[in-house]
Amino acid sequence: MSYFRPNIDAMEGYQPGFQPKEPGYIKLNTNENPYPPSPRVIEVLRGASEQSLRKYPDPMAQKFRDAAAAVLGTAPERILCGNGSDDILNIAIRSFCGEGDTVAFPRPTYTLYETLAEIQGARPVALDFPEDYALPAGLATTGARLTLLCNPNAPSGTLIGPDDVERLAKSLDGVLLVDEAYVGFADANCLELVDRCENVVVARTLSKSYSLAGLRFGFAVAREPLIEGMVKVKDSYNVDALAIEAVTAAIADQDWLTRNVEKIKATRRRLADELERMGFRCWPSQANFILARVPEGRDAAEVFDRLFERKILVRYFDQPRLDDCLRITVGTDEETDALLAALNEILEQHH
Amino acid sequence: MSYFRPNIDAMEGYQPGFQPKEPGYIKLNTNENPYPPSPRVIEVLRGASEQSLRKYPDPMAQKFRDAAAAVLGTAPERILCGNGSDDILNIAIRSFCGEGDTVAFPRPTYTLYETLAEIQGARPVALDFPEDYALPAGLATTGARLTLLCNPNAPSGTLIGPDDVERLAKSLDGVLLVDEAYVGFADANCLELVDRCENVVVARTLSKSYSLAGLRFGFAVAREPLIEGMVKVKDSYNVDALAIEAVTAAIADQDWLTRNVEKIKATRRRLADELERMGFRCWPSQANFILARVPEGRDAAEVFDRLFERKILVRYFDQPRLDDCLRITVGTDEETDALLAALNEILEQHH
Repeated sequence: MSYFRPNIDAMEGYQPGFQPKEPGYIKLNTNENPYPPSPRVIEVLRGASEQSLRKYPDPMAQKFRDAAAAVLGTAPERILCGNGSDDILNIAIRSFCGEGDTVAFPRPTYTLYETLAEIQGARPVALDFPEDYALPAGLATTGARLTLLCNPNAPSGTLIGPDDVERLAKSLDGVLLVDEAYVGFADANCLELVDRCENVVVARTLSKSYSLAGLRFGFAVAREPLIEGMVKVKDSYNVDALAIEAVTAAIADQDWLTRNVEKIKATRRRLADELERMGFRCWPSQANFILARVPEGRDAAEVFDRLFERKILVRYFDQPRLDDCLRITVGTDEETDALLAALNEILEQHH
Repeated sequence: MSYFRPNIDAMEGYQPGFQPKEPGYIKLNTNENPYPPSPRVIEVLRGASEQSLRKYPDPMAQKFRDAAAAVLGTAPERILCGNGSDDILNIAIRSFCGEGDTVAFPRPTYTLYETLAEIQGARPVALDFPEDYALPAGLATTGARLTLLCNPNAPSGTLIGPDDVERLAKSLDGVLLVDEAYVGFADANCLELVDRCENVVVARTLSKSYSLAGLRFGFAVAREPLIEGMVKVKDSYNVDALAIEAVTAAIADQDWLTRNVEKIKATRRRLADELERMGFRCWPSQANFILARVPEGRDAAEVFDRLFERKILVRYFDQPRLDDCLRITVGTDEETDALLAALNEILEQHH
């Protein structure tokens, strides 16, 4: 007999993107921001005191809640901080879904949703996105206690407009969590739905647009009753004292954010144009990555391998809908040039 | 209808110890270490690079596993890192206990165990400790999937010897998690049981003896099959990049640890002697706090209030077995002197 629950034994576990231990790689596989975080973050860390280390952090990270509320135009009481937005997703599923309850999401999307459902012993219901990644018909009628919508979606980069999301929220009996991990690179967001729908949770992260993946900090925005219930489920001290100081400084520096985001958007346009010119087909991306279908007659797994040999890492998903595609993070202009040159070479060789 | 699961609606939520926002308090209420962490930690943080912030951390924190394994004399593969040992407890309950499964623990103990069981929808079975806080008869026969033993126990500070714990482990069908958060201040520990019992998980934290509560870092030591299963349940990037660097430096500095721990043990002896002299009854503590029953005829809640007025924070638990006691963290000698002087005054006044 196993010591583990049957659902844990049966599951495979989420596979995070490859993180090379050696230097020298061009990393376009895990959607990290190629630019450094606000210099104010480094300043805060340099000033870290022994006191902030030896004492427990503020369980609610009030300092960040106040700063974020001011920037976002919401109330601090509507913000819940997490150890990355993965922690927010984890808290949400444990708050709203018991064993056997339905968790619904479109597919393909962030594979962690299915993993979290498996861990919880909940029933994952995945509805296929149409080819253009619009909202799947049927997502409104699954009866799910929790519906998860990654928006912009990973790995497609596509965005569902706030009006469509609002209609979905209003047709659901359960909670709709809009995972806006990549929204910093998008032209629209769903934050206002929190005012208009009592069942909407918007999840955000400092990992992508704020260049702070290493620090693990995300947050949820929702109405007070949802926040108060989720507080009971979170670990008491789920975010660390240094991270609280750092992200409070980061979110206050909106100029830095805007400059980095604009650079990435410009590179994203250029990358998409060049890929299309080479025969790739790119979905319109509102994120810091592009999902690109390899040119007719090419094998995506092989292109991935050839790039890997050149120490250029992108993401390949060996699953339906995605196995003829690569997901490519938007790096610096230099990284993008290196990628494009390598792709040109690889595609030439095989003609 | 609520959006939350019924068990979440029904629960109250864990209450972390009071963390004053203003300075000027003598904090003897949350078992923080009064001495600073190793200076190597500050050095590492001062050298934090933008690179370590913008990229995702190593999901397994291999650097720390290697360093900890060398210090503890175990294999890196037997170590799982967590965002504090609360994260380890959380991972363990979700790994081993489904809804309705039994989680057993002695009582009174760390109240988070019951909270975690409630969140999971598991069935908490609490067995009363005898007056001397020896292992409760019956803990071996609850049929629990997971048995939790805080050792040294909070809030009593008492230690169960490794031989007794081993007998318990061998009589259980499920997993025994020995929560050694306070073991840095004890004369014995249960780490060797991992070699002798396939069902033992030892949980440790860097919060107490290493003075790093603010950083959120704990770890589990267990046989490889248990670690591998728990890896599936943990958040992919559950510990942050800076914390990994900091705790790797901290665990390598065993001299610093030993010096701080010896100071705290000396103050603990003195505090216990003085409290006994005043008429308190102290349980023999192997932790960095003392559970003290107030002198005959005194009201513990009132003594707590009088101390609070003097900006001296200790912990009072309004629950059976503990409502005539105070739990007092061992602070610096100066803090301890201030506490003792205040207690003398308070006890005088009421004669």
